[in-house]
Amino acid sequence: MTEIPLTRIVAGLPPTVPFVGPERQERERGRPFTARIGANESVFGPSPRAIEAMQRTAPDAWMYCDPDNHDLRNALSAHLGVPGEAIVIGEGIDGLLGLTVRLFTEPGDAVVTSAGAYPTFNYHVAGFGGRLVTVPYRDDREDPEALAEAAHRENARLVYFANPDNPMGSWHAAETVTRLIDALPQGTILCLDEAYLEFAPDGTAPPLDIDDSRVIRFRTFSKAHGLAGMRCGYAISHPAIAGAYDRIRNHFGMTRLTQAAAWAALADSAHLASVVGKVAAAREEIARIAAANGLTTLPSATNFVAIDCGRDGDYARAVLRELIARDIFVRMPGIAPLDRCIRVSAGTETDLAAFAAALPEALKAAG
Amino acid sequence: MTEIPLTRIVAGLPPTVPFVGPERQERERGRPFTARIGANESVFGPSPRAIEAMQRTAPDAWMYCDPDNHDLRNALSAHLGVPGEAIVIGEGIDGLLGLTVRLFTEPGDAVVTSAGAYPTFNYHVAGFGGRLVTVPYRDDREDPEALAEAAHRENARLVYFANPDNPMGSWHAAETVTRLIDALPQGTILCLDEAYLEFAPDGTAPPLDIDDSRVIRFRTFSKAHGLAGMRCGYAISHPAIAGAYDRIRNHFGMTRLTQAAAWAALADSAHLASVVGKVAAAREEIARIAAANGLTTLPSATNFVAIDCGRDGDYARAVLRELIARDIFVRMPGIAPLDRCIRVSAGTETDLAAFAAALPEALKAAG
Repeated sequence: MTEIPLTRIVAGLPPTVPFVGPERQERERGRPFTARIGANESVFGPSPRAIEAMQRTAPDAWMYCDPDNHDLRNALSAHLGVPGEAIVIGEGIDGLLGLTVRLFTEPGDAVVTSAGAYPTFNYHVAGFGGRLVTVPYRDDREDPEALAEAAHRENARLVYFANPDNPMGSWHAAETVTRLIDALPQGTILCLDEAYLEFAPDGTAPPLDIDDSRVIRFRTFSKAHGLAGMRCGYAISHPAIAGAYDRIRNHFGMTRLTQAAAWAALADSAHLASVVGKVAAAREEIARIAAANGLTTLPSATNFVAIDCGRDGDYARAVLRELIARDIFVRMPGIAPLDRCIRVSAGTETDLAAFAAALPEALKAAG
Repeated sequence: MTEIPLTRIVAGLPPTVPFVGPERQERERGRPFTARIGANESVFGPSPRAIEAMQRTAPDAWMYCDPDNHDLRNALSAHLGVPGEAIVIGEGIDGLLGLTVRLFTEPGDAVVTSAGAYPTFNYHVAGFGGRLVTVPYRDDREDPEALAEAAHRENARLVYFANPDNPMGSWHAAETVTRLIDALPQGTILCLDEAYLEFAPDGTAPPLDIDDSRVIRFRTFSKAHGLAGMRCGYAISHPAIAGAYDRIRNHFGMTRLTQAAAWAALADSAHLASVVGKVAAAREEIARIAAANGLTTLPSATNFVAIDCGRDGDYARAVLRELIARDIFVRMPGIAPLDRCIRVSAGTETDLAAFAAALPEALKAAG
């Protein structure tokens, strides 16, 4: 074995990764999935205007992006009603979470999240030597009181909180989020992941307040806007925090086509509304399919539905395996008791018909 | 001023950035450039096949990328004649350099580069708390002996060496690079930036040897392949090093269109050859324009030419300013004595005609 002189932090990291892509599963299976409803992508696609923007911009791909993300940032500023100085655009929420951990976490510092919440956040915490502290979900929702309590106990630098939540699809009212922010100790920053906000009922998000340096809001073009493959997320925060990202981000890291696509997608509110409507219908259809198989579903404010398989994690994992064997790409929570569920993304009618056909067989095979 | 609880390293970083984009300059000037020949982009554009691949893939942008970069990595593996396990694909060489510094540099560790070499590498070193040690260029080329000497003296973790070099366009023969690798102390890794290799004469790059864990080679689709705006670079190294990147990289960080574009570009060797030919002609034209104005140029193995303005840095900066005032986007080295030069990227005939028209006026105005 060759001795590679890695830093102590990196040398201590596992070679594992948060998610295996469906493409690798397809390669290993030797055949494609018939329904890609496992990664909470938007099967309804991006706005036709975004597609047109990418196609029109493709010949310009020889030029580096505008490192200021000027046009997209201005459009977001107008859309959100906050100054551009409060907005940081980056390579997806994943990329921004990595930068966030790096901005605020010294090696050994505590960072608090929920056991079973977004693994990529945990991946970044480990990657910068942070000490991850978890609290359990409560009634299939993240538990704000427990998160705040742990933040005090551990003197946490960051608390991660997704609202709506992934992987359960649950959510809290805006007032609860505000109470969580108020309950944090001095010097703790809340990473409020609102990737699924467009699918949630009114009253889920507290008003944006960029004078509040206790919270960073994360949003994305990957979900409702259907641009997961273009890597564009944004953070909304106090301008002093937003400015700190400029000290470490990869300034030319966006693609020029991403900037064009996100800009066009933001302007197409009719497409967004259409997607939100289709997702709501798909959630109902997933619930109907589950009920027809004697299973219950959790309420969801996202573009996916957690189906409670009614037994333990081993059983749900067997159901998942049998669905995958029947060419249905789905995923599931990683930690008990959440892992009694499988997680099914909103699909097209064709996707969900394939799922409906496979589920009874999968349940039977899982025994 | 709001107190933001940044890490010590981040709190100590300047708010400056390596490069201002030409788009910001255009916004500040209130009018566009007529010639964009300052960022060593490929004005000759990407392969038509790459453009077609992006346009065809645009409707699929709702899907995350394949985090394994399987198809592109396989294509590179076949192209380079090294196993895929030795190749890491990332968001441009910029992104990969950041990961590299993070893999190998503890805060306070020494990292060696040349004074005036690629600023973005230095940006990453500072960003991870490394201690940057510089050695001067020698006869407008990076100085391998001085780099190796500094690496020994400072017990450096990394040495940065670009061959061909940016910003001077100079280069060393492969044997010199091999001697540099052999001259490094045990435990020092050479970051060999070969972004401009496609433009260099045969004999510039040592053979790839993935059993050698003392060197990481960096290459890109941003230059000869004309895909700067799509962010795709790759590193070639010992598989144990390549595997380490997997512990910290943003696995879903590539765009799906980037993967498709780079794959298509790699297959179009005729386009690449055409670009290399056009760049060679443009270099001659830049030299001709310079000579017609009484200036000399440095030999170049890249897609740009350093024009020696014949006086000091203040004078060259004045020439640059006057060119920009005449709508010609160019850049220049930041450090003496390199900063007696301005750096002009290969342009189209139209670009270079505009440059030829502006240069005499700019020289006169610079006095």
